[in-house]
Amino acid sequence: FNICSTEKKVLSSFVTINVYAFTPTFKRVVLLECNAVLRAYQDTDSVISSVSTKVKGNILTNTSIEGVHVWDVPEYVIPPQGEKSFFVLTNVIPTPGQTQSKCPEIPSLVTKCESDSDCIEGQTEVHGNGVQTGHCVQYSDTIKTCEVQAWCPLENDTIIPKPALLGAAEHFTVLIKNNIQYPKFNFRKRNLLHHINSTYLKNCTFDRKTDPHCPIFRLGHMVTEAGEDFSVMALKGGIIGIFIDWNCDLDFPERFCIPKYSFSRLDNKNPENNVAPGYNFRFAKYYKNNKSIETRTLIKAFGIRFDVIVFGMAGKFNIVPTIVNLGAALACLSLVTAICDWVMLTCMKDHDQYAKRKFIHLNQNGDSVPLVSKS
Amino acid sequence: FNICSTEKKVLSSFVTINVYAFTPTFKRVVLLECNAVLRAYQDTDSVISSVSTKVKGNILTNTSIEGVHVWDVPEYVIPPQGEKSFFVLTNVIPTPGQTQSKCPEIPSLVTKCESDSDCIEGQTEVHGNGVQTGHCVQYSDTIKTCEVQAWCPLENDTIIPKPALLGAAEHFTVLIKNNIQYPKFNFRKRNLLHHINSTYLKNCTFDRKTDPHCPIFRLGHMVTEAGEDFSVMALKGGIIGIFIDWNCDLDFPERFCIPKYSFSRLDNKNPENNVAPGYNFRFAKYYKNNKSIETRTLIKAFGIRFDVIVFGMAGKFNIVPTIVNLGAALACLSLVTAICDWVMLTCMKDHDQYAKRKFIHLNQNGDSVPLVSKS
Amino acid sequence: FNICSTEKKVLSSFVTINVYAFTPTFKRVVLLECNAVLRAYQDTDSVISSVSTKVKGNILTNTSIEGVHVWDVPEYVIPPQGEKSFFVLTNVIPTPGQTQSKCPEIPSLVTKCESDSDCIEGQTEVHGNGVQTGHCVQYSDTIKTCEVQAWCPLENDTIIPKPALLGAAEHFTVLIKNNIQYPKFNFRKRNLLHHINSTYLKNCTFDRKTDPHCPIFRLGHMVTEAGEDFSVMALKGGIIGIFIDWNCDLDFPERFCIPKYSFSRLDNKNPENNVAPGYNFRFAKYYKNNKSIETRTLIKAFGIRFDVIVFGMAGKFNIVPTIVNLGAALACLSLVTAICDWVMLTCMKDHDQYAKRKFIHLNQNGDSVPLVSKS
Repeated sequence: FNICSTEKKVLSSFVTINVYAFTPTFKRVVLLECNAVLRAYQDTDSVISSVSTKVKGNILTNTSIEGVHVWDVPEYVIPPQGEKSFFVLTNVIPTPGQTQSKCPEIPSLVTKCESDSDCIEGQTEVHGNGVQTGHCVQYSDTIKTCEVQAWCPLENDTIIPKPALLGAAEHFTVLIKNNIQYPKFNFRKRNLLHHINSTYLKNCTFDRKTDPHCPIFRLGHMVTEAGEDFSVMALKGGIIGIFIDWNCDLDFPERFCIPKYSFSRLDNKNPENNVAPGYNFRFAKYYKNNKSIETRTLIKAFGIRFDVIVFGMAGKFNIVPTIVNLGAALACLSLVTAICDWVMLTCMKDHDQYAKRKFIHLNQNGDSVPLVSKS
Repeated sequence: FNICSTEKKVLSSFVTINVYAFTPTFKRVVLLECNAVLRAYQDTDSVISSVSTKVKGNILTNTSIEGVHVWDVPEYVIPPQGEKSFFVLTNVIPTPGQTQSKCPEIPSLVTKCESDSDCIEGQTEVHGNGVQTGHCVQYSDTIKTCEVQAWCPLENDTIIPKPALLGAAEHFTVLIKNNIQYPKFNFRKRNLLHHINSTYLKNCTFDRKTDPHCPIFRLGHMVTEAGEDFSVMALKGGIIGIFIDWNCDLDFPERFCIPKYSFSRLDNKNPENNVAPGYNFRFAKYYKNNKSIETRTLIKAFGIRFDVIVFGMAGKFNIVPTIVNLGAALACLSLVTAICDWVMLTCMKDHDQYAKRKFIHLNQNGDSVPLVSKS
Repeated sequence: FNICSTEKKVLSSFVTINVYAFTPTFKRVVLLECNAVLRAYQDTDSVISSVSTKVKGNILTNTSIEGVHVWDVPEYVIPPQGEKSFFVLTNVIPTPGQTQSKCPEIPSLVTKCESDSDCIEGQTEVHGNGVQTGHCVQYSDTIKTCEVQAWCPLENDTIIPKPALLGAAEHFTVLIKNNIQYPKFNFRKRNLLHHINSTYLKNCTFDRKTDPHCPIFRLGHMVTEAGEDFSVMALKGGIIGIFIDWNCDLDFPERFCIPKYSFSRLDNKNPENNVAPGYNFRFAKYYKNNKSIETRTLIKAFGIRFDVIVFGMAGKFNIVPTIVNLGAALACLSLVTAICDWVMLTCMKDHDQYAKRKFIHLNQNGDSVPLVSKS
């Protein structure tokens, strides 16, 4: 019989592996490996993405300060352009009629004072609202605080409206249009899939089971899928990630490359080990009042920022990674053979017979002789 | 003569490949492979990028509502900060003088009514403009619609100005400044290349043939390169991607690493299988009117959003991928040898002679004998 | 003795390498390679990140035009939402009271004129402020310029306030909250590390030595670390990159995966080979004046844009790259063996003895004979 050359052993080791794969566990490992090695034969590219969003919905509020007020998209979506990161207002602390003037600070440990000597002219507190004038003035009948030059009257944000003013925002919907491409493979696709027609799109809402490809999402549904309670989150705001996963195997037909949506909260809702929980910012609407003095309505806006995060890798057969991985797999398999041989030679009872068939030896003269002496 | 050891065969297989590469097709494949394997010897890094943009241009419009009006950058570029995604207004439906009040809805299938019983108090239609009061009122002499609490008068966006109000925006220019870096290789560069001086930059406009490195782009030129008609796109808006490709082989001198620009439309212009074609959003300018009541001018803004998308990978020689790929290539080549051997042994006529020179055999005693019996 | 099979030689070549690594330089190379090969056993994933920012601070300015004015966050941070790219106003050229009307252009080479024939009706200069009416009018007692339809009076930005109006912005602080994830490894972390408590976060400021994990940064400190002078940069603006490096080896415990901060200037400060140095943009606040005519205050805003750039790759042990790299390393090692053999056979004096032990030869009959003839 023949002594196999290394190359033939490489091929035969496939068989060897199957012989050794007597337990189901081992078989599964081998299968997983094969699958993984096959995927490694692909060249990869990262996704390039463009997103536009459009929110729909109206809310009527009735407050003592503002009276009846209907909020529409240009008022509660900030910025209004429909980018991939959009903010939906859910709670508001308005401070109307601010002008540049002087007023007492909001009381706190560092702003309370008893006389002018407690206040330093020109001082600005990190958490303060203006620049101190150096005077200590009456804030209320009993409390005196340092006077500041600022946009007065100052905002008092100690009490947050509860329930959230725009808690009904959970019924709003957002249409997300997402175009992606894998430039290396000249592949383009969008999340409005081919088989979806306009009629369907005008009425559908995303649902993981019934409408998994509808690109219109109810805000409340997304927050629920992220494991949060909208009415709670609406109070102080937060950040929700809308993940669109475009991982695709482009060796399969194009129709198998479809986006997978998922949602999760991105900011930290834990009160401990946290500063400034929730998500809020301040902006102002500027006016000239009747006396042509610049006036503004300051708005402390609490709300949910939705970040559309598109990610993905596409793989496609390519000769380079094929060479790299095939080569590697071969070298790996020859290692397996070597290990098998070592096992056979060390552990098995009739290792002499195996060795006799496996090795030829040279005697001192360089002649080939079998390992066991001729008898 | 010698029996080659596996290692020598590896080297000789380079020759074998050339022998077998008798057809030009095969030769090209081999060349491509060599090139690809060489590239695989590089370590790679993804680009990190910073973009700022600045649009220039003025347009004069003369409409019956607004009269003569000159539009400058702070009015038509939204947001104004010059980020990597900027929107240029091309068409406008303004609705001046809106206040919080009650008015009849815009007629549609769901808003038309005959009596109050057709309208539900508190109801908000998805495509409606406000919250229904429950009353059915005269919209015009012949049509009655449900009354809504909203920003009134309502916007009527059924008629889009044609030609686009700011269609002349195609003559605007945008300066794009792009700084990139590959942190792994400590490589930095920007799209204002070294050999370009300030005088040139003040007057040039990008042109693929004459000025391929000028970072100032005419909006109309970019839209044309994307295969679109500016005047058509200006009507309902859209999204144009400005792709800057920084793929570089950093084993070559730094001056070869230059950006390549390309343009393509990112949104779907197909009317079928589409919702809300084009690109538009609404924003408002808020005023206090003479009676100090909050008033706003609602603007439905159609326009082109330009997304500057910077992508690229840099490669540079590195010992790790070199080991991986060299090793893999070697293993691969030894596979080639094995296949060659198999071909020789199975297909060729004088395979006995080949085998005699290729293999040595052991007889039952372990002695080595040639495959063919001594005669 | 035995003729080693290829597999055994592979293993023995580990020893061979050590024998040959007699010089320290070679040893270091081998060590580096081993380390690199070990890292190559990992599967990798790119970071997915979400950022929110919050600036704090107030500034009092006292100018002849505006009088005493306190600037707070809603006024000087643009956009106000606290996104990953935020702009802090440092210098301002305000032009109050602009309305749509006609006025002489700012004098320049192209706008100066002597008679109406020098001005073309409908013409818009690239660097101009409006659309020419075709008239040549007095700009000052001695200078005539073309009249334009524009927002008048025109902005005159030739003189930039020096020192910068809001130069004190260097004392502002910004809180950066950054949540990252490596989806492939189901790994999530944020830059508010576990061991940091709320009390510490309320008072700390980032310092590379004393507080390297505090996520609150003083603007001036970041600009200094980027190698720039805040007071100089505040004049004309610029772009500062805040890099957060999340490169992690996830085979180590989670606590070793911590963000590393660095700062660098992203725009080009070189006056030569540059257009529009610094960073500025224009925006406007719109009013209705007493006669209900739309009026605006144009603001040319100079300032520093801070771009938070999060990058990183995580690696974790995975069977696929392990197979690929192990295989490659093995193939590579067998190449080393082959080279060693070649060196031994060509360069060494007693290569006959080596060859005798290394090769067996076939004579014409196919018998195996040593390379040296039996004597």
